Amino acid sequence: MAAKTAIQPTREQDYPKWYQNVVRDADLAEMAHVRGCMVIKPWGYGIWECIQRRLDRRIKETGHDNAYFPLFIPLEYIEKEAEHVEGFAKEMAVVTHHRLEQQDGGLVPTAELEMPLIVRPTSETIIGESMAKWVQSYRDLPLKLNQWANVVRWELRPRVFLRTTEFLWQEGHTAHATAEEAHEEARQMLEIYREVVEEWLAMPVLQGEKPESERFPGAERTYCIEAMMQDLKALQAGTSHDLGQNFARAAKIKYLDDEGEEQFVHMTSWGVSTRLVGGVIMTHGDDNGLRLPPRIAPYQAVVVPIWRAEEDRDKVMAFVENLTERLNAQTFAGGEPVRVYLDDRLYRSVEKKWTWIKRGVPLLLEIGPRDLANGNVSFLDRTKSPKDYQRMPVDEFVESVGEILDGIQTKMFEEALERRRANIRTDVEDFEAFENHFRNRNADAAFVLAKWCEGGPCEEKLKPFAVTIRCLPFAQSDTSGPCVLCGEDASVDAVFARSY
Amino acid sequence: MAAKTAIQPTREQDYPKWYQNVVRDADLAEMAHVRGCMVIKPWGYGIWECIQRRLDRRIKETGHDNAYFPLFIPLEYIEKEAEHVEGFAKEMAVVTHHRLEQQDGGLVPTAELEMPLIVRPTSETIIGESMAKWVQSYRDLPLKLNQWANVVRWELRPRVFLRTTEFLWQEGHTAHATAEEAHEEARQMLEIYREVVEEWLAMPVLQGEKPESERFPGAERTYCIEAMMQDLKALQAGTSHDLGQNFARAAKIKYLDDEGEEQFVHMTSWGVSTRLVGGVIMTHGDDNGLRLPPRIAPYQAVVVPIWRAEEDRDKVMAFVENLTERLNAQTFAGGEPVRVYLDDRLYRSVEKKWTWIKRGVPLLLEIGPRDLANGNVSFLDRTKSPKDYQRMPVDEFVESVGEILDGIQTKMFEEALERRRANIRTDVEDFEAFENHFRNRNADAAFVLAKWCEGGPCEEKLKPFAVTIRCLPFAQSDTSGPCVLCGEDASVDAVFARSY
Repeated sequence: MAAKTAIQPTREQDYPKWYQNVVRDADLAEMAHVRGCMVIKPWGYGIWECIQRRLDRRIKETGHDNAYFPLFIPLEYIEKEAEHVEGFAKEMAVVTHHRLEQQDGGLVPTAELEMPLIVRPTSETIIGESMAKWVQSYRDLPLKLNQWANVVRWELRPRVFLRTTEFLWQEGHTAHATAEEAHEEARQMLEIYREVVEEWLAMPVLQGEKPESERFPGAERTYCIEAMMQDLKALQAGTSHDLGQNFARAAKIKYLDDEGEEQFVHMTSWGVSTRLVGGVIMTHGDDNGLRLPPRIAPYQAVVVPIWRAEEDRDKVMAFVENLTERLNAQTFAGGEPVRVYLDDRLYRSVEKKWTWIKRGVPLLLEIGPRDLANGNVSFLDRTKSPKDYQRMPVDEFVESVGEILDGIQTKMFEEALERRRANIRTDVEDFEAFENHFRNRNADAAFVLAKWCEGGPCEEKLKPFAVTIRCLPFAQSDTSGPCVLCGEDASVDAVFARSY
Repeated sequence: MAAKTAIQPTREQDYPKWYQNVVRDADLAEMAHVRGCMVIKPWGYGIWECIQRRLDRRIKETGHDNAYFPLFIPLEYIEKEAEHVEGFAKEMAVVTHHRLEQQDGGLVPTAELEMPLIVRPTSETIIGESMAKWVQSYRDLPLKLNQWANVVRWELRPRVFLRTTEFLWQEGHTAHATAEEAHEEARQMLEIYREVVEEWLAMPVLQGEKPESERFPGAERTYCIEAMMQDLKALQAGTSHDLGQNFARAAKIKYLDDEGEEQFVHMTSWGVSTRLVGGVIMTHGDDNGLRLPPRIAPYQAVVVPIWRAEEDRDKVMAFVENLTERLNAQTFAGGEPVRVYLDDRLYRSVEKKWTWIKRGVPLLLEIGPRDLANGNVSFLDRTKSPKDYQRMPVDEFVESVGEILDGIQTKMFEEALERRRANIRTDVEDFEAFENHFRNRNADAAFVLAKWCEGGPCEEKLKPFAVTIRCLPFAQSDTSGPCVLCGEDASVDAVFARSY
C-alpha cells in the first residue's frame, strides 16, 4: 500500500490538480477574485525575489540600466506597428474613463477619455517613443535598458503562475548601431537566461530559435529556452527577440553614424516572468509538495524547536537561537549568505514540519532536548524521504551546511537533467511513428527531436495532436534526411512537444 | 557679475522652472506622452533603487514579508468602505473593456466588462480581502505584509516625481490582535521612514500626526514625516496610518482569540513613493543641477579620463582602469561598497564633466597625463564650487574615499538641517502676525510653529493663504496659550506651511 502523501491527488493521479494543490498548500499564490489575476503570497514572492536578485545582477553586469516606463500605452502607439498589432491587439485591458461618481446608490465610471489607454501587454511601442528622443548619434549607442514591471494580457483560460491576466516580469529593450550587435545581444541575453534558469532554478533548458510561426509579432528572430515539466510538457521559460529594424522604422528611432548619415537602429527585446515559479513547481515538486533548489529558496533552512516539558523550553530556545545565528553566518553558492528561519510560532511542531516540507525548504532542522544532550542536529534533506532524518554533531553541521546545500542544488539539477535525457526521443523518423507517439492526447508523451522541412503545411499537420514545434535547437546535427512530417528533404532538426 | 550656472533659470529666478530643468538636465525623468505619467530614466531610477534597497532591508529586518496583490480592484471592494470611497473615489483609471478590434481602419475597445475594474490607487481594500482569508486564529497574528508596486491616481495638475498619475511606491499593510500593537506598528514604521530619509536621503524631517482633516480616508490616525524644500514649502515625504478596526469591519477580517472569542483585527498601512526623488532634488539641488547624498547616488564617483595626444591614451586608460577597480573595492556608510563608473564614452571631457555635475555625482575625478606623472588624483567634490579641484596622492585618495563620502553625506544633512532651523518661526503668536507672515502668496514663507485649538473653523481661515497644517509634531511643548488663528485656548502645537 502506498504511503499517504501530503499532496492529494498525486502527480500520477491528476497532474493539473496536483499542481494547483501544491500552489495552494505551499502557500505560493492564489487566484484573486479579479478574473485571471493572482495574489502572490509571501513564500511565492520570496522565490520570485531570489530569481529577480540574481537575474538583475547579471543584467547589470552585462551593461544594462534599469528604467521605468508608463503602465498605460496610447492606442495610437500600438496602431503604428502593423505586424505587432496583428499579433497583440486582441485581449488587452482598456482604460476608458478616469473618474468614479456616486449615482443611484452605486459608483459609476465618468469622465470618458478622448483616446482610450491600453494597460501594457509589453512595452516595445512605448519604450520606442523614448528611444527615438534619446538616440541622436552613434555615440548614444548601444542603449541597453531593462524594466521590472507588471503587464496585463487578458487571459481566457488563466492558470496560476503559468498564464495569468496580470503577471510580473522583466523586459529588456536595446538599440544598436548594427545588425550584428543586435543579434549578439539577443543571443547573449538568452545565454544569461539559460545560466540563471539552469544554475539557480536547477531547471535544464533547451536553447533554440522559434519557427517563423511562433515568432514575437514584429521580430525577425525569436530565441527561446524550453524546459521539460514532469508531465513531459514543454514550458517556454524565456524569450529573446532580434527585432531588426521593424520597430525602429515604426517609431522613427534614428541616429547619425560617424559619417553623418542617418540610420535606423537595430533592436532587441527579451523577457522572463513569474511563470518561472510555475516551472520550478512542475520541475521539482513531488507528492509531498514543493522542493526548492537552495539558491532560490527564501530560506535555505528552517529550525523548529521542540519540547514537551516546560522546563526544557528555555534551554531549547537558547540552543536554537545560537544555532540559527551561526548558520546565518555561513555561505553557500560561492558566497551567498545562508538564510535561516527560526520557526517559533505557536503551532504544534508536527504542523510546522509539514508546512515546511510542503513549502519545499531544502533543510528542515528539528531540535529537541535529546539533541541538546548529544550536541547533535537532526535534519531532513527535502530531496530525501520525510522519514529519513539525519544526525550530525552541531559544529560539523554548521561548518558543512554550505556544502550540503550546494550538494542539494546539484542533485536537483542532475535529477531533472536525467529525466529530460530519458524523455527525448530521437528515433521517430516518419509520420507513422510520429502519429503513434503523439496519438493519445491524454497521455504524457516524450519530446521528439526530429528533422523538419520548415514548411507551413507540415505545421498544420501537428494541430490534431496538440503538438507544436518548441524550437530549432542551437545544437543542430547538420545531417540531411527526410522531414518527419512529410518525408520531403528536411532542412533542420526540430523539437516537437505538447506545451503549457 | 554672477557666474553663469548650468541650470537656467536659477532657483532664485524661478524655482518651479528650475526644478523642471534639473529633472531634465540631470537625466532623471520626463513626462510621457500619456497625460500625467512619467518615464523614469536610468539615472532617476538608479536613485529610486538605492532608496528601495535600504528601505526594503529595514522593512524585512522589522519582520515584514513582501507579497504582491492584483493591479485591478473590483468596484464592489471600493464601495464597501464608505469613508474610504468618500476620500478616494474620484480620479481613478477605470478599465471597462478587455479587447481591441479593427473597425473602420482603427482599433476600437470591445468586450465590455460586466463590472468595471479600478486600477489601484492604493491597496487596502484588495489586501483586506486576502487578509480575511489568511487570518483565522490569534496564532496567525501579527500579519505584516509589504508590496512594491505601481499605483494610479488620475492627476489633474501633474508635476514630475511630486504628483504623477502613475507612481511607484511601497505600501505596507499589517493586521494585529490589539489596538496597542497596531499603534506601535504605525509609529515604528514612521520612525523607519525618518531614519531612511534622514540618514540616507540626508533630508531632515519633522515627525508628527496629521490633523483630522488631513487623515487618510478611513484611518483613525495618520502620522507623517514632513520635509522643507529650498523654497520653504513643505513636502509630505511619507505617511503611516493607524486604521483601527474600520477596514477590518468592512472586509470582515476576524480572528479567534486565545479564549475562542471572535475579534476584528487592528490594522495599519504606510507608504513612501517616487515622490522622494523630487524631495531629494528640491532639498539638495543647486544652480548647477542635482547634488546627491552619496548613500543614494547610483555611483558615488565617476572617473573621466583625459588625454590630448593619442600616445597618452593607453597610459591614461590603464591608470584609470586600475584606479576604478581599486575604488570599487572600498566601502563607505559602514560597509556599503563604493560604486564607481569609468566614463569612457566618446564625448568630449568637458561635456562629460558637466553631465556628471548636473547629475549630482558626489565625486568627479578627472585624470590626465599630468596626474599620472605626479601620482595624483584630481577631483571635484560636488558640495563645493565646480572650480575647486582638489589634488591628492592616489593611494591616499583610495584609502580615504569612504571617509570623504561619509563627510559629504554628513555635510549635506547638516546644511539642510541648518536651513530648516533658520526657517521655522516660533514667534508668530496671533492672527495679525500670521496674516503678515503668509500674506504674499508668491513669496517664500518660513514654516510657522504655533499653538492651535484644533477647531475646524480655524482651518477654514488658512485657505486664503494657501497654507495647511502640516502636522502636530510629536515634540509638543505642553504649554498652554491662545490659538494663533482664533485666540481661544489652544490644545496643541502645530506646524503651518505651504506645501507640495
